[in-house]
Amino acid sequence: MIDLYTFTTPNGRKASVMLEEVELPYNIHKIDITKNEQFTPEFLAINPNSKIPAIIDQDTGMTIFESGAILIYLAEKTGKFLPTDQKSRFEVIEWLMFQMASVGPMLGQLNHFKKFAPEQIPYAIERYQKETLRIYSVLDKQLSDKEFICNEYSIADMATFPWIAIYEFQGLTLDNHPNLKRWVETVQQRPAVQRGMAVP
Amino acid sequence: MIDLYTFTTPNGRKASVMLEEVELPYNIHKIDITKNEQFTPEFLAINPNSKIPAIIDQDTGMTIFESGAILIYLAEKTGKFLPTDQKSRFEVIEWLMFQMASVGPMLGQLNHFKKFAPEQIPYAIERYQKETLRIYSVLDKQLSDKEFICNEYSIADMATFPWIAIYEFQGLTLDNHPNLKRWVETVQQRPAVQRGMAVP
Ligand SMILES: N[C@@H](CCC(=O)N[C@@H](CS)C(=O)NCC(=O)O)C(=O)O
Ligand SMILES: N[C@@H](CCC(=O)N[C@@H](CS)C(=O)NCC(=O)O)C(=O)O
Repeated sequence: MIDLYTFTTPNGRKASVMLEEVELPYNIHKIDITKNEQFTPEFLAINPNSKIPAIIDQDTGMTIFESGAILIYLAEKTGKFLPTDQKSRFEVIEWLMFQMASVGPMLGQLNHFKKFAPEQIPYAIERYQKETLRIYSVLDKQLSDKEFICNEYSIADMATFPWIAIYEFQGLTLDNHPNLKRWVETVQQRPAVQRGMAVP
Repeated sequence: MIDLYTFTTPNGRKASVMLEEVELPYNIHKIDITKNEQFTPEFLAINPNSKIPAIIDQDTGMTIFESGAILIYLAEKTGKFLPTDQKSRFEVIEWLMFQMASVGPMLGQLNHFKKFAPEQIPYAIERYQKETLRIYSVLDKQLSDKEFICNEYSIADMATFPWIAIYEFQGLTLDNHPNLKRWVETVQQRPAVQRGMAVP
């Protein structure tokens, strides 16, 4: 059994989508970050960086934080969604790293400056919007000759999907990135994705 | 033989430090990002995300971009700096992910707003300075009972070091984070780190 500590955000949904895809049984513990529940001593003992998602695997006693680490862990535990041949495996790991280092942080800054910051700062909104559209283009190009980011559906898709799926919330369109748009629609249709995106 | 595509920046130095630590022979290809050399068709064929570092391993023909993926690849190739027992291995992977997703992107935004942006925007400078100090605290706490981030010196240290080492450039001090300060001094003394930090 897996304990999942999560909230209704893109980083949280990466973990719940993966748990649904691999069909491992899990308990959902909602950590309401709008109520600062990520700062309780109990949760800090699980993730010293005070962020969701995190998991505890009761089978191994292991606690894992950082969604990218959780995805690799669950992929290795189940033998699913991370190929084992060296070349395909590292393609997935590099696109997962691209998600962790660029897609999440930069689209996250756009969310902040466009939707949540107390003042509207045109320079910052433009900076992160431009970077988001650049990231869309990198993904669109990668998807021009592939159904999924690394050919077969993998943890790179699961990490990236919840961040691209919020394009309307971010006031953006995918119309200029047809491959990315087609990919979002394909991934969205997976029943496990739909279940995972509804957690918690 | 490894081909390393890099520049004089923290993300580039992660790769050269690791190559020095594992003592693999490598050719240095300087990609001057101040002259937009990351956007040439030749380099885009290596990294479609147009960023350094990237490597080509002539032994396997594999091309890898994203410093986090490069570190895991070289660690697995050499059997060094990434433990193989499951618990220690995932500790290193989670702190590597924390570096990729928080340390690099957030300290990078502080660099931008404090040092490079055409206008000084107090809100943004304060936002990223606060986040940088929070990250310092997370690391300081982690290092309070350990010599290195995950006990033994690992790729998590190599990924994190070049970003913390620029604290003076960022107008910050480590004086309030004594464990982090002690760690920077320890890592800095490694001859391989000194050689790697001088590349290219
Ligand atoms: N790199 C982390 C990022 C996690 C993250 O940013 N989580 C956000 C919600 S999407 C959070 O918990 N924020 C609460 C806070 O920062 O205090 C991961 O991928 O797991
Ligand atoms: N997540 C990437 C980040 C790489 C990165 O940001 N590289 C910078 C230099 S430190 C770069 O090449 N910038 C050029 C550009 O963005 O056009 C990694 O860790 O490899």
